[in-house]
Amino acid sequence: MPYVNIKITREGATSEQKAALISGVTRLLQEVLNKNPATTVVVIDEVDTDNWGIGGEQVTLIRQQSRR
Amino acid sequence: MPYVNIKITREGATSEQKAALISGVTRLLQEVLNKNPATTVVVIDEVDTDNWGIGGEQVTLIRQQSRR
Amino acid sequence: MPYVNIKITREGATSEQKAALISGVTRLLQEVLNKNPATTVVVIDEVDTDNWGIGGEQVTLIRQQSRR
Amino acid sequence: MPYVNIKITREGATSEQKAALISGVTRLLQEVLNKNPATTVVVIDEVDTDNWGIGGEQVTLIRQQSRR
Amino acid sequence: MPYVNIKITREGATSEQKAALISGVTRLLQEVLNKNPATTVVVIDEVDTDNWGIGGEQVTLIRQQSRR
Amino acid sequence: MPYVNIKITREGATSEQKAALISGVTRLLQEVLNKNPATTVVVIDEVDTDNWGIGGEQVTLIRQQSRR
Repeated sequence: MPYVNIKITREGATSEQKAALISGVTRLLQEVLNKNPATTVVVIDEVDTDNWGIGGEQVTLIRQQSRR
Repeated sequence: MPYVNIKITREGATSEQKAALISGVTRLLQEVLNKNPATTVVVIDEVDTDNWGIGGEQVTLIRQQSRR
Repeated sequence: MPYVNIKITREGATSEQKAALISGVTRLLQEVLNKNPATTVVVIDEVDTDNWGIGGEQVTLIRQQSRR
Repeated sequence: MPYVNIKITREGATSEQKAALISGVTRLLQEVLNKNPATTVVVIDEVDTDNWGIGGEQVTLIRQQSRR
Repeated sequence: MPYVNIKITREGATSEQKAALISGVTRLLQEVLNKNPATTVVVIDEVDTDNWGIGGEQVTLIRQQSRR
Repeated sequence: MPYVNIKITREGATSEQKAALISGVTRLLQEVLNKNPATTVVVIDEVDTDNWGIGGEQVTLIRQQSRR
């Protein structure tokens, strides 16, 4: 019955990668806490890099600086 | 003053249906807990079926299988 | 498959009232969007009035002022 | 290490305004609680006015009424 | 930089089990999306069974019925 | 009308510090986006250090290591 919300920046995660996150985290909850996979819900939010900040800066800017 | 977040898969909910969710849940909180509707906030998140998993599988895949 | 998170201040909601919120919001999603109640998840968070603010003020203070 | 989620209606916030929210809230947590800005995460969600309700009404409708 | 929120019912998860969830989900995000573990944040919420509903019923009640 | 959720580890934040976060973030949203403070909602979640992970480790452990 767990509910898992995964927030990542929107930077091209494929449908296959999202499927791997969903199956992986569902399996983890079964292995660690014996949670029933049938009712484990996983929601992935992809967030624009303009809307995500760390260290007081937008990820958009951090990505630009690391490319230089 | 309650805050309600409703997450559903993005599968064509209309503006009228969203309005019905907002008015319905606001009324429910007033009836059950006597909460002031004026400051009840409701936020609906529509999530791509690729980004929602249950039972370890993407909803996209579950929908395809149920159509067969 | 919807996921609903209801946040209210911790001010004595009873177990029966929480049960009424859970059944009520599950029924609402079935009526409005034909969502399967069996996989509708509802999570209620009760938040201390010190930790909830509206209008820039803690609810603790707002409650004290309204009692005067 | 704090995590801050800011939800606003999608009504044209610019990248500069989002940057100001990110830097401002990160600084606030440093000033008030001495939190390390390097690991403070801020995520801004912009929500369609159809999907946001207050007082039991969609913001879309509230905006139309206030324009009259 | 991902942020993961895991919500489970409060039913005796140990500190070691929580540590296993944190390390497991951090590793999963590194393997699947090459995310930097150093800035991956995981927050576990334990929710009273009175405050969690599925299928329109409180988990408290579901647990009682399954014990009979 | 914004909704802000601030998650911090439960490490002794005082009521006054929480009040400062609530008033500070409400003012920030007014200054940056001209948001009406009267309907700005702020919810602070304090999370046990056992339930918060960064870099794949529980904060409880990180705190113990930094004290040595």
